[in-house]
Amino acid sequence: MARPKNDDFLRALWREPTSRTPLWLMRQAGRYLPEYCETRKRAGSFLALCKTPSLACEVTLQPLARYDLDAAILFSDILTVPDAMGLGLYFAEGEGPRFERPLREEWAINDLAAPDPWDHLRYVMDAVAEIRRALDNSVPLIGFSGSPFTLACYMVEGGSSEDFRTVKTMLYSRPDLLHKILAVTAEAVTAYLNAQIESGVQAVQIFDTWGGTLSAAAYEEFSLAYTKRVIDGLMKTHEGERIPSIVFTKGGGQWLEKIAATGCDAVGLDWTTDLHEARRRVGARVALQGNLDPMALFAPPEAIAREATRLLDAFGPGGTGHVFNLGHGIHPLTPPESVAALVETVHGYRGPATGRQA
Amino acid sequence: MARPKNDDFLRALWREPTSRTPLWLMRQAGRYLPEYCETRKRAGSFLALCKTPSLACEVTLQPLARYDLDAAILFSDILTVPDAMGLGLYFAEGEGPRFERPLREEWAINDLAAPDPWDHLRYVMDAVAEIRRALDNSVPLIGFSGSPFTLACYMVEGGSSEDFRTVKTMLYSRPDLLHKILAVTAEAVTAYLNAQIESGVQAVQIFDTWGGTLSAAAYEEFSLAYTKRVIDGLMKTHEGERIPSIVFTKGGGQWLEKIAATGCDAVGLDWTTDLHEARRRVGARVALQGNLDPMALFAPPEAIAREATRLLDAFGPGGTGHVFNLGHGIHPLTPPESVAALVETVHGYRGPATGRQA
Repeated sequence: MARPKNDDFLRALWREPTSRTPLWLMRQAGRYLPEYCETRKRAGSFLALCKTPSLACEVTLQPLARYDLDAAILFSDILTVPDAMGLGLYFAEGEGPRFERPLREEWAINDLAAPDPWDHLRYVMDAVAEIRRALDNSVPLIGFSGSPFTLACYMVEGGSSEDFRTVKTMLYSRPDLLHKILAVTAEAVTAYLNAQIESGVQAVQIFDTWGGTLSAAAYEEFSLAYTKRVIDGLMKTHEGERIPSIVFTKGGGQWLEKIAATGCDAVGLDWTTDLHEARRRVGARVALQGNLDPMALFAPPEAIAREATRLLDAFGPGGTGHVFNLGHGIHPLTPPESVAALVETVHGYRGPATGRQA
Repeated sequence: MARPKNDDFLRALWREPTSRTPLWLMRQAGRYLPEYCETRKRAGSFLALCKTPSLACEVTLQPLARYDLDAAILFSDILTVPDAMGLGLYFAEGEGPRFERPLREEWAINDLAAPDPWDHLRYVMDAVAEIRRALDNSVPLIGFSGSPFTLACYMVEGGSSEDFRTVKTMLYSRPDLLHKILAVTAEAVTAYLNAQIESGVQAVQIFDTWGGTLSAAAYEEFSLAYTKRVIDGLMKTHEGERIPSIVFTKGGGQWLEKIAATGCDAVGLDWTTDLHEARRRVGARVALQGNLDPMALFAPPEAIAREATRLLDAFGPGGTGHVFNLGHGIHPLTPPESVAALVETVHGYRGPATGRQA
């Protein structure tokens, strides 16, 4: 399997010099794009879009047709894993994801098992293979999963939550039950990501969307320990190429050193973390990905350029080891032309240039 | 004016030795107490409760009748200030606070003026005086305000928000307009807190509930700078007693050093910050307040005791300069007996005891 023609994204994750700072955007294939909304309408539902490889492939490629992005990310949903574990994922209109069978009873937790990704999540592997063919080695394809803790939040709460009262009540009252869920989920996530790698993804990102809602002590015990278990179990190479991993913990800025010590190649940062400070703290060990406030994309192009430049300057000389991204998924109401302004700024950046390739 | 009989809370804020670690709870007069719900029902509405000094006094004292807490906090709402600025506060059923006239037009922003607290917020000053009489110097009374940025969020959004898109669009597109709002609001907050001090509060807390939603750079420019302006303008003593100030920024754990440098006496911590680490970082300059996850109060008493003890141990030897609190307001569904278990644990703590008074 050949290295992609544009390998800046992979090189940045390995902290090798790049021709320019690479960028992609979390949720880049999403509702802010009219063509995405059209495909989704055609699919009939969000889940049908996820479960039909040709449609998942179609929307994965849409942002790359519009913008000069440096990576594609598999179009899917983090909740397909608990769905494959039998919880019954559905989307209630205007309510977000829900599970028919939230995981709360001790007997159900004891019965929980990691699904075979080649069986229950075959549609994801088929999508990965189809996207790789369509990309034709132009840019790398990123695979992903939710972190065990983030998946457990949805599994126990039965959907989104404002305060995570149910899962945290379990955490403080019956930590043994939550540890059981997390152990099985970590096994499921590891197998799922390895299957994605075998199907062709060239990097993986673990989304720890809700780890940042925990206390520092609980984060280490219930989130980070299981993310590390996943990273430990990942294939490090596939067909002769190294497969880098990125850990993104929303609200994890206080714990960068600990996240960097999991063995991941890069740490994703939300916009609350100062990039200069983050580089000083962990930049010698991992690459950094981030971290524009997604709300900055509601400003006019010159303001977007100013904010993006401020981040590039903050990362500092050379830019080696920086993947530009938003600090969270792009907002559905974002004007598509804002993304064009952002891509132009990041790729056109010639700031503190020492060490950068000519 | 005499020092309260129990002055542990004030002494802790000044980093002086105390007989035991003092505690109070954010939103301690609230819906988890049946007697609060009864008074609120009698008042007819939440706003009537805030605006009727005798009722505000009644609910302020309720948690102190049940629990051995070390401070009372004025019962009020942070949005009374923008209400006094003419925005028209109301509470839509099940929707939280709303303003009739959100602040978005340039002319309205230019017209914004700081209200005289002795006129438009007289009911707060009357409540403070009445509570002080009722407390009879048993424990100190805390006054409070929202931070200028947090108030501006509500003023511009017109209510609560999930993503703060409107105020952040202003921040990135028209920072000059947001700075105008913040300057006037800082002036209003300063006058409001000074009026509370003159009416009898013995410490003040600034709630920066939404500062943590900003990027590190924007936090300094749009939130912290104006919180500092308020602190600079506060009366430092009243009737011969020093008046300590506490700054609580939810999600501000990454910025502790900067918050501690505002000149406040104490920094409030949410539960994501490790208390030991926080003490190492800023404990030589300020007292620390916090930081139990409010969700821990849904666990059984022995688990609550374990978590609280873990925090007290984490703060470490002596306990000097620690005010125990939750990391956020107490949840309305909290079992009242959980608070009893917490108070007993904190006051009964005899852990790492060096430097503690006999």
